[in-house]
Amino acid sequence: MALESSLSTGVSRDTIRAVQWRGDHLRLLDQRRLPHEEIWLDCRSSDDVAQAIRDLVVRGAPAIGIAAAWGVVLAAWCGADLQSALAKLRAARPTAVNLMWALDRMRARVQAGADAQALAAEAQKIQNEDLAANRRMGALGAALIESGSAVLTHCNTGSLATAGFGTALGVIRAGVEAGRIARVYAGETRPWLQGARLTMWELARDGIPGTLIADSAAAHLMRAHRLQWVIVGADRIAANGDTANKIGTYQLAISAKHHGVRFMVVAPSSTVDMGTPSGEAIEIESRDPVELLSHAGARTVVEGANAWNPVFDVTPHELIDAIVTERGVIEKPDAASMRRMFGEGKQ
Amino acid sequence: MALESSLSTGVSRDTIRAVQWRGDHLRLLDQRRLPHEEIWLDCRSSDDVAQAIRDLVVRGAPAIGIAAAWGVVLAAWCGADLQSALAKLRAARPTAVNLMWALDRMRARVQAGADAQALAAEAQKIQNEDLAANRRMGALGAALIESGSAVLTHCNTGSLATAGFGTALGVIRAGVEAGRIARVYAGETRPWLQGARLTMWELARDGIPGTLIADSAAAHLMRAHRLQWVIVGADRIAANGDTANKIGTYQLAISAKHHGVRFMVVAPSSTVDMGTPSGEAIEIESRDPVELLSHAGARTVVEGANAWNPVFDVTPHELIDAIVTERGVIEKPDAASMRRMFGEGKQ
Repeated sequence: MALESSLSTGVSRDTIRAVQWRGDHLRLLDQRRLPHEEIWLDCRSSDDVAQAIRDLVVRGAPAIGIAAAWGVVLAAWCGADLQSALAKLRAARPTAVNLMWALDRMRARVQAGADAQALAAEAQKIQNEDLAANRRMGALGAALIESGSAVLTHCNTGSLATAGFGTALGVIRAGVEAGRIARVYAGETRPWLQGARLTMWELARDGIPGTLIADSAAAHLMRAHRLQWVIVGADRIAANGDTANKIGTYQLAISAKHHGVRFMVVAPSSTVDMGTPSGEAIEIESRDPVELLSHAGARTVVEGANAWNPVFDVTPHELIDAIVTERGVIEKPDAASMRRMFGEGKQ
Repeated sequence: MALESSLSTGVSRDTIRAVQWRGDHLRLLDQRRLPHEEIWLDCRSSDDVAQAIRDLVVRGAPAIGIAAAWGVVLAAWCGADLQSALAKLRAARPTAVNLMWALDRMRARVQAGADAQALAAEAQKIQNEDLAANRRMGALGAALIESGSAVLTHCNTGSLATAGFGTALGVIRAGVEAGRIARVYAGETRPWLQGARLTMWELARDGIPGTLIADSAAAHLMRAHRLQWVIVGADRIAANGDTANKIGTYQLAISAKHHGVRFMVVAPSSTVDMGTPSGEAIEIESRDPVELLSHAGARTVVEGANAWNPVFDVTPHELIDAIVTERGVIEKPDAASMRRMFGEGKQ
């Protein structure tokens, strides 16, 4: 299955690499400026990388982890203090699990006495493994989809959020490539509009026809039109398959169940947390209400108004038809099937 | 039940009148400028009123109908051709059912030879009847709500959309006044943000504490917090109780059913269309994709992208716990209970 081969249209479906090692510096596509401008930012020190992570130049848990790994390489290259660099990078986005996971791998190599070249090899390995996992998930997920299907995704889970290809959006890339997916819908994903700003840009760049909808139009879409799958990513998957993901995911899962539309979660196995028994134990972060009260810096809501702005929600495993990781597919996930694939506890 | 009396807080919950007859002209609160500015626009001719309707200075089906009725009065006052004025006002928003209904009433008075004073009396009657219907619905709807409840509404169905008090928001006003409603949540209502811009402004103006949420956070709200009712308006109610309303309503109804949260539709009986057998027969208008692709005139989505922008959706009667009109409450509406209240066919 040649996922990167050109179709008869001559368009490759996987052209975007937002995190690029250029031999002596790290080049990042500035996601804050998309879709208006494609601005690249060159990081020449681990401080530059930490700053870029803090400022959301790079977003998406896997992409952040990869950028941070290259930040350690830059520190070694510049002769900077590696422990200090590791600490600064770790503090750049304190809640990003993939950041900690990638830095732990780099720290182990530092402690084993690796030089800059050996650290670069490890960072490249992390990046390559992420891309390979995404391609593997793409093939596994696409195989679940009947030919000619229409699918809906949420937020941005594509090349911008990973080493490339993407998780949920990787399944969509693979499904389009394989001729299984005929139509792609993207929810705009309030309040940050990752779907509107980033996913629609990725789809356009890779020649995949996509249609944007308001998040609240998903149920009407399911009723009015043929839709086979909702395909989303994950921020954390509990031991029973309950999945935390971008706010709005749970509402999509309820509507999908109501209409007999299937629901797929796509995430690398590093997202599975067998130490969290169920979604009940996942704390949901709420962000500044101002994200709902303003747009592009301009106030849209009356002064003094209050807003509730949770970033994630939890979709119970009963509403999930398939969890796809690079290790394989779990259909109708529950505690027993999760344990069979991921063991008793991780880390 | 004195709905307009001040509470112990000294705050009246019903202070907004967006359509005001001032003896010789019609004063409209410019809803395009809210919540940033409270600008009033004076209409001194029927052409002024038609323009204000076309330009969305005034929105909400009942409010448009009332403004148009006063437009006919202004035409008579100025000695303008009444048939021409009626035609121009009718064409200002061709799909607004309440506009036609109000103009039909005015036309009947014109044909009966009414002078400007008699026409003013008819316009005032239409306006007074709307306010009275809203107060009646407020009392009927609030009586269904248990003390201390939390409720969620969608779009704007308040004083701004009617002669005053509102439909769904009128039930909320009455419920707050009666001490039955303890918390009010409003969905922002993409893409026009009527909830964020208008409902939050109304709530603030009338001293009702409200909390804004992203439309996609409703299911998470239902799961995470105590919520008793979702309360919405309607654009058309079919003979079996199926209800067309602002896009996103259907998704809320599905989530409400999933969580055992009750679902109330509030609309004047003029919204009931017994000639439409079910929601299947209601055509759903789609608007320009640019409403999703831009914000405040600035493009937010990559050039060339496509969007699907339906304005309404249909909530099947099976998902509705109560339809409240000024004639009474229908619990668990279906074709039989609708026929008992509204007869075999209307108009």
